[in-house]
Amino acid sequence: MVATIGIDVGGTKILAVKLEGDEVVAQELFSTPGEDMIGSAIAAVSELWSDDVATIGAGIAGLVRFPEGVFVWGPHVPGSNVPARQLLEQEFGVPAMVDNDANAAAWAELQRGAATGRSDVLLVTLGTGIGGAVISNGEVYRGSSFAGEWGHMLYQANGLQCDCGKRGCWETVASGPALARIGREFNSLNPEGQLARLLRKGDFTAETITRAADAGDETARGLVSQVGAALGQGLCSLIAIFDPEMIVVGGGLGSVGESLLGPARRVAADALHGGSHRPLPPIVVADLGPEAGAIGAALLARQRLRAATH
Amino acid sequence: MVATIGIDVGGTKILAVKLEGDEVVAQELFSTPGEDMIGSAIAAVSELWSDDVATIGAGIAGLVRFPEGVFVWGPHVPGSNVPARQLLEQEFGVPAMVDNDANAAAWAELQRGAATGRSDVLLVTLGTGIGGAVISNGEVYRGSSFAGEWGHMLYQANGLQCDCGKRGCWETVASGPALARIGREFNSLNPEGQLARLLRKGDFTAETITRAADAGDETARGLVSQVGAALGQGLCSLIAIFDPEMIVVGGGLGSVGESLLGPARRVAADALHGGSHRPLPPIVVADLGPEAGAIGAALLARQRLRAATH
Repeated sequence: MVATIGIDVGGTKILAVKLEGDEVVAQELFSTPGEDMIGSAIAAVSELWSDDVATIGAGIAGLVRFPEGVFVWGPHVPGSNVPARQLLEQEFGVPAMVDNDANAAAWAELQRGAATGRSDVLLVTLGTGIGGAVISNGEVYRGSSFAGEWGHMLYQANGLQCDCGKRGCWETVASGPALARIGREFNSLNPEGQLARLLRKGDFTAETITRAADAGDETARGLVSQVGAALGQGLCSLIAIFDPEMIVVGGGLGSVGESLLGPARRVAADALHGGSHRPLPPIVVADLGPEAGAIGAALLARQRLRAATH
Repeated sequence: MVATIGIDVGGTKILAVKLEGDEVVAQELFSTPGEDMIGSAIAAVSELWSDDVATIGAGIAGLVRFPEGVFVWGPHVPGSNVPARQLLEQEFGVPAMVDNDANAAAWAELQRGAATGRSDVLLVTLGTGIGGAVISNGEVYRGSSFAGEWGHMLYQANGLQCDCGKRGCWETVASGPALARIGREFNSLNPEGQLARLLRKGDFTAETITRAADAGDETARGLVSQVGAALGQGLCSLIAIFDPEMIVVGGGLGSVGESLLGPARRVAADALHGGSHRPLPPIVVADLGPEAGAIGAALLARQRLRAATH
């Protein structure tokens, strides 16, 4: 049986998986502290390499020209205009597929995750920023190449500063850093408050706040629901724009579940365009967890290899 | 040669055209003052009816369930859950096609207008509100039915009141009424100003302001460019979301041309996500003018009839 390697390249980590048939037979997580994204990617693939690997898939967080597989630019990943697909093919001598990371994750959720059996689905990934992918008629929709970058959809004209250099992007209010920011703001107003006692002073990360919320802390729940409301407002724009069958919410922050998605659904139901005449599409948590991107990259690579050889 | 009738149903007007082959052989504009949208539509079709009409197409401003052709709801057109397709078919005894008006207009621009030869295009229509349609892979993309309603994409959280009942929708700042509103605001601050002298007092409509701008009035040009900037910001969100080959701007206000689209393009170029690594897609004026919706409805109806009989 031939094997496939898939990697998911983020700002600070690369997750690599090896697939034999439908099974993940190996998996490794690498830190990528340096500036050499493609060197780190090659090192990650090498760790799982064996001679039965027939193709390699990579998802990268940022703008990827497809099908050329050129990493054009991304606010969180070093490098620009890197011919990633060509470099992987030269290094390993097998066909490679390089796509945006959210496209890869969406493909995995469609093939074997929360969106199985659906055909018009949006994936919204919440982490350091907001990533996104469009499934249209059962295929990844890329437009000219870069579709799905709704983290940089305007949410508030002249709003908060975004990592991308502009202001008021959706991800400034609905992301891990957004939750950490409102935690810090709250703490500076309430330095003796319940949340400050609960959390180590200054340690306001999205993780510590969501953990406190899940443990039942009311203040932390309030902060998470603020981010959920901003998530719901943006989802509402996406529903007006795409009228999807389903929205799948993934990524580190997305996996928090109901404390975030409950408020998001309530806000989206209230703000839905024509909301008394149509149902809110299901807004569900991704099934595949942090491996979705790497698995999806492997599955997309395998699909392209099959299409090329049949 | 068989004929096709196409109608474009707006809030206050219905435009009807009759096509023989590719030629518009008749055209009429009707006012629709009453609450009976479908009665007005039937009256409009009757005016152009002849026994060689093989199919009828209708585009309606609002949410239309497709392919059922049920007008679900729209902020500017009376009625809800009207089985428009069924009622037209009963009345005239030929197959009918009923779709969203912007979908019909986009199809016309793709077949014989500004988007000829393209395959991934957005149509943005500016009038009383903002309408929209997505062409993906050379076909109209509808999602579950209602895609393209980006007039109600959030532009400013807690922003201006919208006709739809919510706040801060894009169409509150980029539409005919938005231009009229900033004209009135400007006039109330500058009651003796140049613009007030130029225009009849109180007559601040989008038409009078754009006419003054085209005649070279600097103040009017400033007002139009404000709306152009808000248009450009929203287009920028749509480019991040779809990465289209081209954006076609239509509708009454869209036809204003460069005094509006120039500022929109400049703002979009500055705000484009990853803008130093990718070109701004062309943002062009629609070719077919106010007849686009009616012609497109006829063309869509004819296409569906052919597909059904082959």
